[in-house]
Amino acid sequence: MAFTATAISFPDPRQASIDGACSESKLPSPNQDHLPSEPSFEQPQQQQPSPKFKSSAMLSRWSRARSIRSGRMLDRLAQNDKLMEPDLGSPQALSPGCASPVSNRYAWFGRSRSDVSEATAAKQIYMVSDGTGWTAEHSVKAALGQFDHSLVDRKCPVNTHLFSGIDDGDKLMEVIKQAAKEDAMLVYTLADPSMVESAKQACSLWEIPSADVLGPITEAVASHLGVTPSGLPRGARGRHVPLTEEYFKRIEAVEFTIKQDDGALPQNLRKADIVLAGVSRTGKTPLSIYLAQKGYKVANVPIVMGVGLPKTLFEVDPEKVFGMTINPVVLQTIRRVRARNLGFGVEAGSNYFDMDYVREELDFAGKVFAQNPIWPVIEVTGKAIEETAAVVLRLYHDRKQKCSMPRISKRY
Amino acid sequence: MAFTATAISFPDPRQASIDGACSESKLPSPNQDHLPSEPSFEQPQQQQPSPKFKSSAMLSRWSRARSIRSGRMLDRLAQNDKLMEPDLGSPQALSPGCASPVSNRYAWFGRSRSDVSEATAAKQIYMVSDGTGWTAEHSVKAALGQFDHSLVDRKCPVNTHLFSGIDDGDKLMEVIKQAAKEDAMLVYTLADPSMVESAKQACSLWEIPSADVLGPITEAVASHLGVTPSGLPRGARGRHVPLTEEYFKRIEAVEFTIKQDDGALPQNLRKADIVLAGVSRTGKTPLSIYLAQKGYKVANVPIVMGVGLPKTLFEVDPEKVFGMTINPVVLQTIRRVRARNLGFGVEAGSNYFDMDYVREELDFAGKVFAQNPIWPVIEVTGKAIEETAAVVLRLYHDRKQKCSMPRISKRY
Repeated sequence: MAFTATAISFPDPRQASIDGACSESKLPSPNQDHLPSEPSFEQPQQQQPSPKFKSSAMLSRWSRARSIRSGRMLDRLAQNDKLMEPDLGSPQALSPGCASPVSNRYAWFGRSRSDVSEATAAKQIYMVSDGTGWTAEHSVKAALGQFDHSLVDRKCPVNTHLFSGIDDGDKLMEVIKQAAKEDAMLVYTLADPSMVESAKQACSLWEIPSADVLGPITEAVASHLGVTPSGLPRGARGRHVPLTEEYFKRIEAVEFTIKQDDGALPQNLRKADIVLAGVSRTGKTPLSIYLAQKGYKVANVPIVMGVGLPKTLFEVDPEKVFGMTINPVVLQTIRRVRARNLGFGVEAGSNYFDMDYVREELDFAGKVFAQNPIWPVIEVTGKAIEETAAVVLRLYHDRKQKCSMPRISKRY
Repeated sequence: MAFTATAISFPDPRQASIDGACSESKLPSPNQDHLPSEPSFEQPQQQQPSPKFKSSAMLSRWSRARSIRSGRMLDRLAQNDKLMEPDLGSPQALSPGCASPVSNRYAWFGRSRSDVSEATAAKQIYMVSDGTGWTAEHSVKAALGQFDHSLVDRKCPVNTHLFSGIDDGDKLMEVIKQAAKEDAMLVYTLADPSMVESAKQACSLWEIPSADVLGPITEAVASHLGVTPSGLPRGARGRHVPLTEEYFKRIEAVEFTIKQDDGALPQNLRKADIVLAGVSRTGKTPLSIYLAQKGYKVANVPIVMGVGLPKTLFEVDPEKVFGMTINPVVLQTIRRVRARNLGFGVEAGSNYFDMDYVREELDFAGKVFAQNPIWPVIEVTGKAIEETAAVVLRLYHDRKQKCSMPRISKRY
């Protein structure tokens, strides 16, 4: 049973009226299943994507950011008014059932603007891709990192929904329709230009805020290389991953790293590209695996008070060894959770997360690091694995290159 | 020794003339170190970013793609002429040393346009980030996937260079200057608006093709959430990763998966979210690790002809078991490389990569799969790990949700 994507054949909504599918003027109202009695509105203004909506995207990002930055939480609908309807003053634009571009979106739901603003606080982000969807997911996650301050305290919870392998126009329309129903925004990575065009038109027509993640960068790269993009999503016929050196190197790195985990096979430390040393729960294992996925062979060596370190640790090139340290209070918390997950309680009599012990063990590790001053010591407190990985790799490549402008270079 | 990023204080180039740093009119010519004798050109036209350059970015992406798509390899400079100088007809615009926006870039290098187009074929892509840089790297990799056809046959090799943790304006300018020297394009993910502004201005002034990966999506999300982005890059003070359930779940998944690798501890299959079964070298281990990083506990079970499978494999919920299969010729190639890497040659007498054996073992696996029709069988031939992961997770969530529009949902 093969799961490769089928060839894409998506009728352009502007031409498809011949066979009756997806003609723009026939695009179904997203809530037609839910609210069949909703009065259908006239659509003369929707025959073309709203120029007002388009122009809003061109407003200076940072002048807007600055105005938001002044500190107030903006009501999204109020902002939409400002962005999409700078000249909005007429009350009829707000009247329910009116065919104005702004009110249509809410008219579908048979509720007024105030109803909408009082609706559930969680915001929905739809991510749709004709490939794996990982680029969309990664980018949304990075963007959401800019809103940590509001997500953490749950003022503004966000749900993301990833739809991958959406490789024909019908499936795409179904997802976008659902996005409209759920009042979601849409983030898309679509390789096929006709799919992009359809997504744009549907989002414009249904007034779904959207962002094209792959398009602008692909366009810029195409222009830089002077080469046409293939327009084929990952997994499409004709896009097979070749068995390159890179492919084997990465798999080998992952397998090596798994075998070396937690101080196993210290005789192999020489073969590692990177060696991590630190006390238990400084994140050596997930960091090792993250780096391995990027093609580095990683070995990690636990530092345990009272347990001798392998001799080979001090024999390998010290420039590839990295110490890891962490705030003792945070470490205690992490160890307590770890012990609970393993089924050990306080009564187990272990000093594993005893504060004095935690501090002593960190001091012990600190002395080992002090005796090996070439090892950089990475402070991991409050860092995601990805961040620590970035620090390690920056230092690793700086040392290898010994040049004025360190970088991580790759050849494609 | 802590490696946390320091607070960002970057002088706005337009205001910095007071302290002499980075004033736009004083932006150093990128090659001033290399070519001090290069006649300095008047810069009256550079006081503001070139409107021509800006407008080119608004040209319809797909009308351009279509024209490129016709099949010819475009000479990038010819394309630049078209995009940036639609009315370019005057010979003086091509004269060396002229201050026109297009010719400046090449004037720095003291070479003519024809020299440039005859230069080394490898194209450079600079990626710069005030955080980890992984979003830029991921996006560039995805975009380059659209040019597989030209990269594979080396018609157009590409080198990427990642500069992470670029957290002040001076470092940023140094990288962009170097990008200009190397005739590179610039892809950036910068959280700080003043850094973005500087990057834009420098790229515009020095005519470096560029793409802002994080900005547009952050802007769209900000508008959707009605919340101000923090403007803080990853690793900045004040952006600490909290010890959430998600954090512990992911680490636990990675540790579980490592312990279960290659059929170890079959008694734990019940605890796995996903179980992968397949013959040696179908990519079970790297796939397991990839999925584990996403928070799934994965166990993998090798199918070896003549070796009994663990009883627990048939006792667990069959909806979480996935079979993996592959084209025998491709498998033979992968096994041959594997054997070589392990130091075994043909003389070792193993039938590990013998074609008859490979086929028989795949047939044997096929029979196991046929006896367990609920297990989906994933064809991994020519698929990257990320692609197979997308297929597995799509099926996994489809089965769990049993809804009409399957998706992978997360809460932030």
